[in-house]
Amino acid sequence: MVRLLTKEDVAKLLTMPDALNYVEEAYKQLTLGNAIVPQRIAFTDPALGLTLIMPGIIGGKMNALATKIVSVYKQNPEKYNMPTVLAKIMVQDINTGDIVGIMDGSLITAMRTGAATGVSVKYIARKNSTTLGIYSAGVQARKQVSAVYWGLDKKLEKCKVYDLKKNVAKDFKKEIESELGIDVEIVESGDDLLSNTDIVVAATTSTTPLFSGNKVVEGTHISSIGAHAPDARELDSIIIKRASLLTAGLKEACLAEAGDYIIPINEGIITENDIFSIGEIITGNKPGRTSDSEITVFKSVGISAQDVAVGKLVYDRALKEGIGQNIAF
Amino acid sequence: MVRLLTKEDVAKLLTMPDALNYVEEAYKQLTLGNAIVPQRIAFTDPALGLTLIMPGIIGGKMNALATKIVSVYKQNPEKYNMPTVLAKIMVQDINTGDIVGIMDGSLITAMRTGAATGVSVKYIARKNSTTLGIYSAGVQARKQVSAVYWGLDKKLEKCKVYDLKKNVAKDFKKEIESELGIDVEIVESGDDLLSNTDIVVAATTSTTPLFSGNKVVEGTHISSIGAHAPDARELDSIIIKRASLLTAGLKEACLAEAGDYIIPINEGIITENDIFSIGEIITGNKPGRTSDSEITVFKSVGISAQDVAVGKLVYDRALKEGIGQNIAF
Repeated sequence: MVRLLTKEDVAKLLTMPDALNYVEEAYKQLTLGNAIVPQRIAFTDPALGLTLIMPGIIGGKMNALATKIVSVYKQNPEKYNMPTVLAKIMVQDINTGDIVGIMDGSLITAMRTGAATGVSVKYIARKNSTTLGIYSAGVQARKQVSAVYWGLDKKLEKCKVYDLKKNVAKDFKKEIESELGIDVEIVESGDDLLSNTDIVVAATTSTTPLFSGNKVVEGTHISSIGAHAPDARELDSIIIKRASLLTAGLKEACLAEAGDYIIPINEGIITENDIFSIGEIITGNKPGRTSDSEITVFKSVGISAQDVAVGKLVYDRALKEGIGQNIAF
Repeated sequence: MVRLLTKEDVAKLLTMPDALNYVEEAYKQLTLGNAIVPQRIAFTDPALGLTLIMPGIIGGKMNALATKIVSVYKQNPEKYNMPTVLAKIMVQDINTGDIVGIMDGSLITAMRTGAATGVSVKYIARKNSTTLGIYSAGVQARKQVSAVYWGLDKKLEKCKVYDLKKNVAKDFKKEIESELGIDVEIVESGDDLLSNTDIVVAATTSTTPLFSGNKVVEGTHISSIGAHAPDARELDSIIIKRASLLTAGLKEACLAEAGDYIIPINEGIITENDIFSIGEIITGNKPGRTSDSEITVFKSVGISAQDVAVGKLVYDRALKEGIGQNIAF
């Protein structure tokens, strides 16, 4: 019997606080050695788009085994009126290997990417943070704000947003003010996000730095979830040098894919030893922020463990709440 | 919209001659450089069993993109009354990346493994072959016989079978005689399969050679689809040395996983250059059998391209014949 869950089913079942808890647990189990994130498979030719295969296992109390299949076809919107990114998650029973749940993965991808930032905020942003500045007002950015809100235990009061697309920024303002009841200010330049903010989130498609690291004020926590190629980055080398705590969703994944860290390492500004998986801080192996004046950085490139954890959460809840279709096949 | 196909649906849609044609086309496209078989992902701890993730793309006229997720949990039969091996295949639309078909993969796995042998028989067994000797009477072996039957264009007249489990051998005889209308003889020793046979198939779970290569008669074609680890093999070094044509489903896959070739290479008996992908012969890049006295060998370890091809075949036919369930998710 396989439980099938549409995007609408997933939306009914998944909340950001839960996603945040599950992604935190995934990071923790990775550090404890109870999780496996195999190198993902990416392949394209002779297809027109990219397919990514992202399997993973998380042990501990979660006991989750799942694989996400994501495709990225840039011509989809224009040619087929379909989204560029499509995803499904196949959840296996960890005791038998049987695929027992198949669900839409697009909302889960956005939520778990948000949740990564939320976990970093929970652990290494200043406890008295109340203001967020975010680069991009897109769909992913909205989940980031929600995650920061919950990562701060609802203490977020204000969000400043910068996006070249004014209409998108207006929609963002309307949606976030309605959803979270916080004040949203649309700013005119990227640098406006850097003053009087406690947390800065970069959630863009940019492959070059969004701001000068010199302009970041002391005490800021920065999360970058955009660029994910060795030669692409949202953060410059200055801010990486200024930051006293450099963290990653998974250090190994960032060292393989995140230009934000790879470029400064290649420049000799930092070394691999300066970067810590956030799980090291969650488990208490490594201290987190030690003063209100520190600048802290979190970089996440997206790893299967996030999808596996949130996919398991959604599957378990679907069974409990009787949501979705049961199909014998 | 996703088309869901149960094992019963797949059984209605899939015939061996079709599987053979599609696997042949997959091998051909691999050799032509129009197909990708990424290194499969295998992972286990902290789960009790093994999960294999096997994606692939085949271009050309087939235009197939799919991923098989297979699990191997040895405790399933005893603990859960479930099969050890479970599999599902996710078929994507190669133009959009969208997952459009999800089907049971167990029958497809058996059929495509049979089809591999069938393709080798079609291309490199003696044209006047009429008799098969097969090691194992198990489920997989039955598909092998069917594949040899179709690979010989229905000219197979007799099958000799050896299996330690007498009841399994009796079931095999009954099933094959009924299905294919050929004579089945249950023999008392493995060596009985080697005389008066044109084709020998090894389809066992053995990790050590099944027979002495000295006992194989000239002109025999041998297919081994069992062992698939670098230190495991069904064929000994003698037969590998005696054979004048050594072929593989995919050379690179066999060089990575097949002890049948890896061990003799390490012993210095053959070199990598002595092994050819069967696609080289299908495309005419390399001559096949050149005389009736040659001994030819085919070794297959199972590659995603076989599943991708047969999965696409089943999906296309399901749409055409209106079989399976359409689910919007």
